[in-house]
Order: sequence, then structure tokens, then C-alpha cells
Amino acid sequence: MKNKSINPLNGKSYNIPNLIDDAISIDEFVLRNNRPVIAVQGLGFVGAVMSLVCANAINGDYAVIGVDLPREDTFWKIKSINEGLFPVIASDPKIEEFYNIAKQKGNLLATYDSYAYSKADVVIVDINLDVDKDSDFFGELNSYNVDLTAFKKAIESIGNNCKEDVLILIETTVPPGTTKKVVFPIIKKCLENRGLKSDCFKLAHSYERVMPGPDYIDSIQNFYRVYSGINKISADSAEIFLKTIISTKKYPLTRLGNTNSTEMAKVLENSYRAMNIAFAVEWSRFSEESGVNFYEVVDAIRMRPTHKNLMYPGIGVGGYCLTKDPLLASWSRQNLFKGEEELGQSVKGVMINDKMPLYAFEYMKRELGDYKIKGKKALLLGVSYRSNVGDTRYSPVEPFYNYLINEGVKIQLHDPYVRLWDELNIEVENNIEKVFESDFNIIAVTTAHQEYKDSDCLLNLLLNQDDLFILDTVGLFSNSEIKRLRKKHKIRVVGRGDII
Amino acid sequence: MKNKSINPLNGKSYNIPNLIDDAISIDEFVLRNNRPVIAVQGLGFVGAVMSLVCANAINGDYAVIGVDLPREDTFWKIKSINEGLFPVIASDPKIEEFYNIAKQKGNLLATYDSYAYSKADVVIVDINLDVDKDSDFFGELNSYNVDLTAFKKAIESIGNNCKEDVLILIETTVPPGTTKKVVFPIIKKCLENRGLKSDCFKLAHSYERVMPGPDYIDSIQNFYRVYSGINKISADSAEIFLKTIISTKKYPLTRLGNTNSTEMAKVLENSYRAMNIAFAVEWSRFSEESGVNFYEVVDAIRMRPTHKNLMYPGIGVGGYCLTKDPLLASWSRQNLFKGEEELGQSVKGVMINDKMPLYAFEYMKRELGDYKIKGKKALLLGVSYRSNVGDTRYSPVEPFYNYLINEGVKIQLHDPYVRLWDELNIEVENNIEKVFESDFNIIAVTTAHQEYKDSDCLLNLLLNQDDLFILDTVGLFSNSEIKRLRKKHKIRVVGRGDII
Repeated sequence: MKNKSINPLNGKSYNIPNLIDDAISIDEFVLRNNRPVIAVQGLGFVGAVMSLVCANAINGDYAVIGVDLPREDTFWKIKSINEGLFPVIASDPKIEEFYNIAKQKGNLLATYDSYAYSKADVVIVDINLDVDKDSDFFGELNSYNVDLTAFKKAIESIGNNCKEDVLILIETTVPPGTTKKVVFPIIKKCLENRGLKSDCFKLAHSYERVMPGPDYIDSIQNFYRVYSGINKISADSAEIFLKTIISTKKYPLTRLGNTNSTEMAKVLENSYRAMNIAFAVEWSRFSEESGVNFYEVVDAIRMRPTHKNLMYPGIGVGGYCLTKDPLLASWSRQNLFKGEEELGQSVKGVMINDKMPLYAFEYMKRELGDYKIKGKKALLLGVSYRSNVGDTRYSPVEPFYNYLINEGVKIQLHDPYVRLWDELNIEVENNIEKVFESDFNIIAVTTAHQEYKDSDCLLNLLLNQDDLFILDTVGLFSNSEIKRLRKKHKIRVVGRGDII
Repeated sequence: MKNKSINPLNGKSYNIPNLIDDAISIDEFVLRNNRPVIAVQGLGFVGAVMSLVCANAINGDYAVIGVDLPREDTFWKIKSINEGLFPVIASDPKIEEFYNIAKQKGNLLATYDSYAYSKADVVIVDINLDVDKDSDFFGELNSYNVDLTAFKKAIESIGNNCKEDVLILIETTVPPGTTKKVVFPIIKKCLENRGLKSDCFKLAHSYERVMPGPDYIDSIQNFYRVYSGINKISADSAEIFLKTIISTKKYPLTRLGNTNSTEMAKVLENSYRAMNIAFAVEWSRFSEESGVNFYEVVDAIRMRPTHKNLMYPGIGVGGYCLTKDPLLASWSRQNLFKGEEELGQSVKGVMINDKMPLYAFEYMKRELGDYKIKGKKALLLGVSYRSNVGDTRYSPVEPFYNYLINEGVKIQLHDPYVRLWDELNIEVENNIEKVFESDFNIIAVTTAHQEYKDSDCLLNLLLNQDDLFILDTVGLFSNSEIKRLRKKHKIRVVGRGDII
């Protein structure tokens, strides 16, 4: 089955080609378009949508080729784009709109052939760069490492094909120093090996701030951007290009002094968020001990403009960025710059956050007291790591789920936005009323979806049950809702000592 | 000399009375005023100005008695208030204005006699509560402790005098739990001992957010307030009172569920700031290692509303709050609530910040290389811990100064806002041109006063010198200024790796 790639959107199965040769369709596409060509490397959460934004450039007219590998998990995306079905499902209607316009114009192609880079005036790098986290079952981080092998290979595939005067724009979140110390020498060497000029390619770094969800397109097209280049001409080229795809009048660009700076800015942004959550974790536990409603305290403090970024705690930190970016930076400090120290506070922040699901689980067990949970039935409300979207990447609900399973609890899952929980390959019920047709002993609110808050639907369903243990890990319920629920159930809210 | 208290504003000397008896003037004041009486305990940075705000209540008409101890460092304030010279010098013109109105109305008295509490309808507690930090010369925090003895004694002085239906409003920053676990039982017991009803006094907590400087008065009168009471009637009374002195229409009050919550909110606010600085410290060091201008990076990131509270680093953290409040909270967790753990991340934040002056000093030594600093002359620009005000409490410039002295450097000091550096009892030059009449080898910018930024005055003075080592610890100079300075001097900026 390794040579098949299945489209989860329509179940269609594709044979993965052994021979990489998509030159004819690339040549045909470029010839037909007669426009400047942009190649986007990587068709994931960022690259796929970046391709749409480029194909719908506000101040430019481009032919866009999305490139990804002919692999089981990626090949279907290439086929899907070319066959008329966009591979990213999101609540942003602009995705569909932008894709339809590109289809009509015929200026969007997807391919698995690096030959595409030979046609590109601009290559945008949107591949992933992961941190290998060595953590135990309980979220304890033992060590972390960054393996640049796959990243380097991807950059080589550009260097082995690109024009000598190409603009390469790195958007991938990388360890600070990567553009200058890793990408630059690879491209230079590849060009030299090909007998081409190696001093006129442009290399820039400009990180994305993509936010999957209702503002997916706007998080690229209508948002602030920071950029830099390995030299002035690279930075200038990046600026000219970015101005063609981003509303820079409303959201002015910021140029930083060198590529290390923009690379650091990106990981710093996410480390700042991760750190603020770790800070909230510590204080929410103190809140529980001292009979304080942490949510109420945060709301009171946030009225001060200087304290607006204070965060709520929750069941944990998920997603692709906050769970790894502080480690990317810390790894860079020690491995690319020979700094003696880790970024200790930032790494510690990740470690604290990684143990939040365990804390929520242990808190629940403690509050359940002598109650034996083995064989009991639990419902988890929300598997997405973020409210109001279906995104289960590194969701903190996953370890929480595993801890319950490990204790012999039977679990049902609900999430309005997730049909299949990819990482665990489990079906998730979308219909809240349907899931409540079963009986439960324990109900845990694990994602703060608006659907759980807005209507009285969830509240009424809960009030129709008897004798539940309700664990609210995200501060979903209001004081008055808790009052009503307490008449029938035992309820605990993580970070709220005042209701015990 | 212990029985003298000298007014630093006019040099006047007062004999401290052995016998505490100011009853006649208090009785006369109360009788003459025939208004509800507010006693403010403590005439420091908060209490003195709080007295003015109460005497000029926007929706009330009060007679205000400020109370402090007949001690060397406080007795002069009492006399000064009564003799027509307000003891707090600040750039806020409203201070003078409010004081003059109170003088005209005759509704402000200061006293050293606790008898004042017997006349008060409201007692506001604005005394200090310190953390004993056991740190070594290099800022390494070995341990910390909170001694409540003096605080308890102050509360007893209220309990031994107050009316049985008084409203006591705690504004002091206290370890969470103090109002309920410390103040309440003391007042109750005192009233019982006096044979009075002990169940009708009102006890509330509402922390101040006073900011000495140009908006001193407004930081009380026109700013958000959080409050709570030990029971509903206490919270209600506090609300009614606060509405008479604060513009609550524009800045609505926030009531929290219990006094632990407001006490926690206060220390959490300051811990959040301290933590954000510690975070910036870590990353600014990485910036130095990787050739990044940290200030530029922070500016770029702050364009995002979710990242507005990101801080700059600097020479260190000073002032009365950020240096101790995380420790107050952590001490409370372990001593008033028997939590097992410290607030580890927050305490670590204080520890990181406490070592910032040492870092700046060592950075300077490293950058000076073989240059022997013993016997050299240095000028420090700024001794205040905060820009644009003269406030040297726990200033990070103090340890920095000590490290230089320790290495045999001769130091001159300049600060436009500080005449006498209280803590070290050293004269400080206010005139920048005068201080530059001497020659120096090293100049360190240690406070980011606007005066250093605004005019070209400082820049020109520096350009008239030759061959200086300039250490900018606060990111004062712009790129173009640095360019000009580098032509004549060696310059280093803490947190800016890009200019080395």
C-alpha cells in the first residue's frame, strides 16, 4: 500500500509514480501562462494556501506551481489541486473563492517534479522543519534535537534546478542562523556544481503568520510581515515581491538587519506565547490552592493595556508552533552559534506546557477521590487543540485521552470540526445531540469551541443527565451555569479553586 | 540624632516626640470639618498621594487624616504636610494643585497618633510590606522571607482604636491570603478585647496601581480598580467608597470573588511584567551571540496586538514592586496555603532580573578586553530605575555602580531627576553640560531618560570627546547615532549583537 496515496476528502486512490517526470505538464503550464513563475515548495497548511494567495496576487500576475513530494501523505494533494478539489478544508470562504479564480485563470499547477524550480523566478520554501522531542508517556521532555537532513535535501532540490538569478524566499520556521549558515552555502555550491554564476541569486527570509480558520487567507494577505535578506539586493527583491501579494499599505512591511533577526523574531513570537501560557499554568495552580477563580483574575488584569497579552491556562498547548519553536531556538543557540546555555526559561516553558494534560488528568483523579474510573465511560468534548477550528496537530487532548485509556476508561469523542482524528485514526462524532444518546460517567470539556458556549444546547444536554463528574479544563462555563450544573452533578474547573 | 527627623526638601529639623499625643489637633480637625473622616495609614509614595485624592474626592466630601510613625524617616512628612509643603516631589502638576485645594479647604491633616483611627469612617492601609531578600553582592538570590511583624503591629494600631463599624480598605501589596488570614483575625480580636461588636466592621482589599511621575494623580483617580471584601457588605461598602474617589464611569470597577483573588491579581500583574523582562533578557543574550538587534526584533513583533506586551531588556529591574512581588506570592503559596511548590518560573524570573546589572558589567568588561579599568573614570547617565522620573528605589544602577567601585573605577553620576541618591547618600549632578566638563574613559547609559534621547545635546557632548568606551545598557542610541559615535568611540549596546 506504500505506493498508493489516498485523498481523504473523496476517498480517491492514486498510484504514486516511481519515475519522477512531470516535465511535460510543467512546460505546457509555463508556456500557456506566459507570466512570471512562482514555485511554492511544500503544500501543507502554509504552502497550499500561500499558493492561492500568489495565484491571486493583489499587485501582480503570476503562474504558480505548488511542489510537494510523491509520498503517501502528500501525493494526493498534488492530484487533488490539479483535479479541481482544493486539499485544505477551512471555514474561510476565501479559500474556495481564490481557488475557483485560479482554476478559471489556469494559473495554478501542482507537481511532484523539482523540474518546476527551473522555471521559477521566485521559489518560496514552505516545508516543515520538525524538532525531535524525546518525551515519555507523561509528557516529561528528556531531550530534543533538530535533524536538518530532510530540510537540506529539499534546499538541494532547489539548488539543483533553480535559475542563477532566482529569488528564494524562506518562509519555514527554522532555527535562527539557518538561512545564512545552511541554505546559502547549499544553493551556492549547487550553482557552482552546475557551472552557473553563484553570486547573483537572491536569498531572503520572511516568516508567515498563517492562522488556519476563518481568516486563513487574510492571515497571509492582510497582515504584518517581517523580512530580511542575506544582502541588500536580496532584501530589496523580497520587498518588491511581498508588496505584490500583501496589502502592505495597510500592513506595512518591516525589514530587519539580517536573516538571523527575522528567523529569531518568528521563534521568539511563539516562545513568548508559550512562555505566557506556562506562566498562567503556575498561577492557576496557586489559584486552585487558594480558592481563587483564575479566569476572573485574568479578565480583571487584562483591562490594563500593558497586561492584555496575559493568557488563560487550559488543558495544554498544541499545534505545530508553540510546542516546538522555543526548542528550535534553543537548539540553534547551542548548535549553530555555540552558545553555552539553553534558552532556559523558554525551554522550561515548553516543559511546563507539555505536562498540562497530565496535570488535568491527575487533578480529575484527585477530585474523583475513591471513585474507580476503570471501566467507566467518558466523553471528551473537543479534540482540536484550538477552539473553532479542526486542527488536531499535537493536540493536548491526545495525551489526556491516552491517560484515560491507560486507566481502562472507555471514551467517546465529540468535536464539531473533526471527523477523523488523524493522529489516532479514530472517528469523531460531530453531532452533539447524537453523542449524548449514550450514557457517561465523566464528561470533560477539552476544547473551548464556540458551539459549546453559544447555545444552551450543551448545558441542557448536561442538565438532562444525572450524577456526572464534569471536568471543565478550559473555563467554559460561567458562574451561573456552574450553579445550575452543580445541582445535578459534581463539577470541577481547572484553575478555579473558588468552586470547590 | 535618632530623635531628629530632617525634611530633605528644606533642611528643616524636627524633634521626634517621645510622648505620642496628638489628640487635641485631631479632635479640633474633626470638629471643624464636620465631614466623614478617612484615615490613611502610611504616607509613602502611595499613601501621601492617596490622601490628596481622598481630600479631593470627585463624588464625596471628606476630612482626611494621614497617619505615619514618629520615626526619623517619616516624622518630617507629617510636619511638612501640616506646615504647607507637600512631601512628595513629582512632575505631575496635579499634586500641587490638589494639595493647594486641600489646604484652602482645611480638610487634610497629618498625624503620628493612632488616635486618628478612632475618628475614621474609612481606614485605608497604605503601609509597605517588604520581602527580605538574602542575596549576595552579585545579585544571586539565596533565599527570601516575609516578616509580617511590623505589618501586624500596624493593623493592631487600627484595631485598638477603630470604630466597630469602620470600613478598612487594604491597599498594601500583601501575600495572597493576608486580608483574610492575618488582618481579619487581628481586627476581630482587638474589637473583642475592647468589648465592642466584632461582626460589623467591613474589611476590603483593593490594590492601587500608582505610577509616580507625570500621571501620578491619574494613576489613582483615573484608572481601573479591582476590589473585593471578606463578605458582601464589605465589598459593597468598598464599592460605594471607591466610586466617590475614582472616575468609575470611565474606568469601571471590577469586583472579584474574595480577597485572596484581588491580592493575587496584584502580585500576578507585577510578576507578569517581571517574567516578561526575564524572557527578554534570555533572548537579548542570544541576540548578542547571533548578531541580532534585539530592539529591532521586539519592535517588529510588537506590531501584533497579541504581542504588544513584549518587553525590552535593559540594565535591570528596579523599583519597589517587580523586584519583590513574585516572591511575596511564592512565599504566600508555601506559608499561607501550604502549597508544596514555589512559583518556580516567577521566582526564577526575579533571579534572572536580579543578575542583569552583573551581566551588563561583565559584558562591558568582556568588550573592554585587556583594557585595565582600575583607576579609570566612568560616567553613569541615569541612576533612577525608571525613565523620566527620579526614583532610585532598588535601582539596578546601584549594583552596577558597586561592581565598578569594587574594581577601582572612579565614578561620576548624572540624572536630571535625582539630586541626592538616597540609598547611597551620594550627590548626583543634574546638569548634563556641567558633568561633561570632566574627562572620562567610560560612559554608561544606565537610564533611558527622554532628556538623553530628545535633543542632540548628549550626542554632541559625546562627539566632542575622544576615544571613549560607551556602553548603552538601555538601547538609547539609534542606528545613525551609533554610526556617528563609532567614528570616534568604541560603542556597545546590551542586546545588540549586530553592531559588534
